[in-house]
Amino acid sequence: MSTSQPEDDRHRPLRYAYLGPAGTFTEAALRQVASPDEAVYLPQVDVASAIDAVREGVADHAVVAIESTVEGGVTATLDSLAAGTPLVLLREVLVPVQFTLAAAPGVALGDVRRISAHPHAWVQCRRWLAHHLPGVVHVPATSNTAPAALLAEAAAQGATADLGFDAALVPPPAVDTYGLTPLAHEVADNVSAVTRFVVVGHPGQIPPPTGADKTTLVVHLPDNEAGALLAMLEQFATRGVNLSRIESRPIGDALGRYSFSIDAEGHVTDERVGEALMGLHRRCPYVRFLGSYPRADAVRPTVHVGTSDTDFVAARAWLDEVRTGRTS
Amino acid sequence: MSTSQPEDDRHRPLRYAYLGPAGTFTEAALRQVASPDEAVYLPQVDVASAIDAVREGVADHAVVAIESTVEGGVTATLDSLAAGTPLVLLREVLVPVQFTLAAAPGVALGDVRRISAHPHAWVQCRRWLAHHLPGVVHVPATSNTAPAALLAEAAAQGATADLGFDAALVPPPAVDTYGLTPLAHEVADNVSAVTRFVVVGHPGQIPPPTGADKTTLVVHLPDNEAGALLAMLEQFATRGVNLSRIESRPIGDALGRYSFSIDAEGHVTDERVGEALMGLHRRCPYVRFLGSYPRADAVRPTVHVGTSDTDFVAARAWLDEVRTGRTS
Amino acid sequence: MSTSQPEDDRHRPLRYAYLGPAGTFTEAALRQVASPDEAVYLPQVDVASAIDAVREGVADHAVVAIESTVEGGVTATLDSLAAGTPLVLLREVLVPVQFTLAAAPGVALGDVRRISAHPHAWVQCRRWLAHHLPGVVHVPATSNTAPAALLAEAAAQGATADLGFDAALVPPPAVDTYGLTPLAHEVADNVSAVTRFVVVGHPGQIPPPTGADKTTLVVHLPDNEAGALLAMLEQFATRGVNLSRIESRPIGDALGRYSFSIDAEGHVTDERVGEALMGLHRRCPYVRFLGSYPRADAVRPTVHVGTSDTDFVAARAWLDEVRTGRTS
Amino acid sequence: MSTSQPEDDRHRPLRYAYLGPAGTFTEAALRQVASPDEAVYLPQVDVASAIDAVREGVADHAVVAIESTVEGGVTATLDSLAAGTPLVLLREVLVPVQFTLAAAPGVALGDVRRISAHPHAWVQCRRWLAHHLPGVVHVPATSNTAPAALLAEAAAQGATADLGFDAALVPPPAVDTYGLTPLAHEVADNVSAVTRFVVVGHPGQIPPPTGADKTTLVVHLPDNEAGALLAMLEQFATRGVNLSRIESRPIGDALGRYSFSIDAEGHVTDERVGEALMGLHRRCPYVRFLGSYPRADAVRPTVHVGTSDTDFVAARAWLDEVRTGRTS
Repeated sequence: MSTSQPEDDRHRPLRYAYLGPAGTFTEAALRQVASPDEAVYLPQVDVASAIDAVREGVADHAVVAIESTVEGGVTATLDSLAAGTPLVLLREVLVPVQFTLAAAPGVALGDVRRISAHPHAWVQCRRWLAHHLPGVVHVPATSNTAPAALLAEAAAQGATADLGFDAALVPPPAVDTYGLTPLAHEVADNVSAVTRFVVVGHPGQIPPPTGADKTTLVVHLPDNEAGALLAMLEQFATRGVNLSRIESRPIGDALGRYSFSIDAEGHVTDERVGEALMGLHRRCPYVRFLGSYPRADAVRPTVHVGTSDTDFVAARAWLDEVRTGRTS
Repeated sequence: MSTSQPEDDRHRPLRYAYLGPAGTFTEAALRQVASPDEAVYLPQVDVASAIDAVREGVADHAVVAIESTVEGGVTATLDSLAAGTPLVLLREVLVPVQFTLAAAPGVALGDVRRISAHPHAWVQCRRWLAHHLPGVVHVPATSNTAPAALLAEAAAQGATADLGFDAALVPPPAVDTYGLTPLAHEVADNVSAVTRFVVVGHPGQIPPPTGADKTTLVVHLPDNEAGALLAMLEQFATRGVNLSRIESRPIGDALGRYSFSIDAEGHVTDERVGEALMGLHRRCPYVRFLGSYPRADAVRPTVHVGTSDTDFVAARAWLDEVRTGRTS
Repeated sequence: MSTSQPEDDRHRPLRYAYLGPAGTFTEAALRQVASPDEAVYLPQVDVASAIDAVREGVADHAVVAIESTVEGGVTATLDSLAAGTPLVLLREVLVPVQFTLAAAPGVALGDVRRISAHPHAWVQCRRWLAHHLPGVVHVPATSNTAPAALLAEAAAQGATADLGFDAALVPPPAVDTYGLTPLAHEVADNVSAVTRFVVVGHPGQIPPPTGADKTTLVVHLPDNEAGALLAMLEQFATRGVNLSRIESRPIGDALGRYSFSIDAEGHVTDERVGEALMGLHRRCPYVRFLGSYPRADAVRPTVHVGTSDTDFVAARAWLDEVRTGRTS
Repeated sequence: MSTSQPEDDRHRPLRYAYLGPAGTFTEAALRQVASPDEAVYLPQVDVASAIDAVREGVADHAVVAIESTVEGGVTATLDSLAAGTPLVLLREVLVPVQFTLAAAPGVALGDVRRISAHPHAWVQCRRWLAHHLPGVVHVPATSNTAPAALLAEAAAQGATADLGFDAALVPPPAVDTYGLTPLAHEVADNVSAVTRFVVVGHPGQIPPPTGADKTTLVVHLPDNEAGALLAMLEQFATRGVNLSRIESRPIGDALGRYSFSIDAEGHVTDERVGEALMGLHRRCPYVRFLGSYPRADAVRPTVHVGTSDTDFVAARAWLDEVRTGRTS
């Protein structure tokens, strides 16, 4: 993680707020960012609390989910970032949406009749289960880690009482955290399903461009006409900036007013991205910059003819000559 | 309600599936559509069940929330309509998001210290409560009608036991349904907050144009370029069709693929709307028509120069003459 | 030439008006259309007269230049077609802008010191002449064929008097017409320079589509804003119709009002072209169809995804189903 | 005339090349720029020579016609400016296209049977003549001033010989220049017809912005697709710059390649105009700046929301803050 920390805290390990408890998918994302050995993990009860922990100085960074292939944009994250003290995204991390089927020690796959799982998890594994464990019954859980905690607690007490289920679908990190026995790995119907997590920090910490970057924005439109959305998109198209994500959310004060959450290809220090942002600032009632950071997939943007930094610099030099009458 | 029912069921009252139980905001919407005296109310456990009740023939129509000023598009409704057996929207109904503060008989406003409310309801009334009942405590409820049911049950049993709360924030219809005593009406922080509900039915029942109509669509883009969204919006703009709502949702198979939920001004039988729909059908991989129906606000669309039905008919007549060499 | 003639004149040879006299480039174009053996050649004093000859029934067709690589659109032709009794273009013919250096019998290339040529011809051959006949002198002529006629006249009279020039740059057909001796063929500085000629006729004679066609239009814009031109171009772009030529001409009543002369790829019977034309008819104050005819270069248009006739037919069928409630 | 001249020539009167001879409409334009008392008038045989006189240092400025309501862009002027040593337009002047009917002393309007006039002049006065002098005969002249010169010459010689005409349609300044007797003023069919003239000079002399300025450009498109023209126009539209004139001319090397001559509202020192020009420079293969100068009609541009210089400066300040992490 290339982001810096305050001068005087140089030797203090970085503190990461995240959606806890231990064992969640968010923790899996956090582990890609900083190992528990070198950082302080601060589990929070919800996304807004994790983000606010950064605003309040309790944490240096927050790691939160921002988009999933199944659910789309994570409303709580988008809304927390769109208002309040400005924060920026410093990095993105992709985590596959794959579960581990786990149980107490001694239980074999063939013994499993009842599986505890959060309803979302169950839905995402239904076809896998129908194929590998036909006839198995769903026992709803209140979170992805709740059944893991129950299994761990029971084991700790040496309890033999029936928990009402034989195994559970849990995020992979929960297996170690709760001392469970894995029965099957990478359980998922859609093997390409992923959740995108982001590392949130203060604006002073924009990571330098890598050549394969992404810039995230929140933009409100001047009115609710199709023309306003077209005009906003033209601000990007005219400078050759592609968008990799665009989502609308109601602004909340009246039906028909929308806020757009946008990922643009490129870094805020790219000339074409900078000019597009200035265009938005001029024409839209509200623009918030939410960071420029390396793309997790490391895909470099297609740079269209006439939109490289060199082209912008040459155009400005030419304009200067034209304005001073040195050429036409 | 102008929609028809099958010939042989002419004298049977229409059956409406909706998100129950009795007393919800959805019921308030349903009451605007058909009174309980002339229709059969079929409360369902969730939105998907209400919509499926129509697909399965158990209900003639479903009444479901589709958009709120606070939350935006209702995911469950949009997703249920976007796939599966085609259904269409027949009518929209706006319901203000305002609560009634209600209690058991004999409780006065001054006695209220603890209020049971669904967390969403609490959030939407926080400023009102801080002003009118400073220091009051929130007791979370699992739904908007749950505390009403508890109050009714206790009253029925003549119970004097403490329910853990003194009053509840409930949807206005719950007051009568559960025999409660209203302490305050129209409790809300944002008096213009509304939820938009729709009446869902079978495709054969498109309501005739009124001159102030709306057409709802689901459209997938050919790829994830800004250019594709621009091109899709141009299909509307070229024919002078304004959009009153556009929301994106992930398609769910990979990050970066989106489905757009769109409300266009006008009726599918309008020439300009028809040509725009044909344009979408030609260029987009997936288009689903979700109905044309009167706007609740009765606002007529701005018809731009050259985009009235008369203009389209004249243009076609001219083209016919040109093609047959009768003019140029 | 595939165009038809009136029923009762079936056995009469077609009459072609063209810019005369004999021996011009226009005659070279006409020869590609119909040989003098099978058609009546009616030379005219100018382009407007040739076009009016068709309007007045004196000729069946006119052959006139419409565009050159050097001069651009031929104003006289464009203006004559843009107003007055409607006529259409039936065919286009390309003629290379190459001259023959010709003289009276007995003159050799080495004898040539003074060359008669129309100033336009001289300009287009200057580099060739500087290379092959350095030091040669230009004797201006009033037309391309005038020096040829002088040479022929002198020869007919057996005159030996000095005409003031030794040779002339003439259009290739003038060599035979005036009985000259060619000294050099294909004289031209820019070997790819061509003039585009068109065959003009009555609207009832639109040639059938060949798959590599062109449609010519005259369009006035609603006002002089950049937005109006953008909106006009969008009428083509939305339907996937490319333009191969666009030229503006003042309308003539005030500065800043323009008429656009346009060549669109495709035939008026193509669905995408027809819908674009209807769009222009609806939004622009004036549209004149000037014909659909085979491209001289036989290049077939790029048909973008979703813009083939099949796509249009399928879209209309789908819309019909949607409107009648048979699907959504 | 606010343009400057070289330091060392400060006291030398400015020299103006223009399309002569004396008495032309161009001279009428030149008189609006500088009186013959304070400037040197250098009549030239054609427009190209007038422009080249500036390039060669023979003249300080050239005054040439650039556009007429009747003929459109003046090809010779546009082509001379589009290539060769860069020059810029410093000022524009409008001259009404109105003629004076003039004769030798002693001739009365009632005596006029035959009128000498350049064919263009005749065409532009036909209806006036039909109304005021029915039955009058046209005697073609080779230029607007030629018949004036003939009348003056005859008068100087005391000649009584018939010139073949009784009166002539001449530009107003020719009456004094040639000592003629005016019979009718402001002869014209279209009283709003004007010709636009420009003062041409060296690039170092750009006039300062007045708030009602025009910027003239020559732009080549990257290819001949409709898309390329649309993309070029978007460079202006995205920055809120309106176009008051756009004309296409063939580039001359092949059919289908065009150069666009454009007048944009605003001055090159305006932020929005500068950014649009940089956009053209980046995306188009060729852009030539032909000057920013006050509009003759003094009409100020419509400045769209978010496109004033203040908006641009604020947007750049915001971008700087975003890039340095001082805000988002």
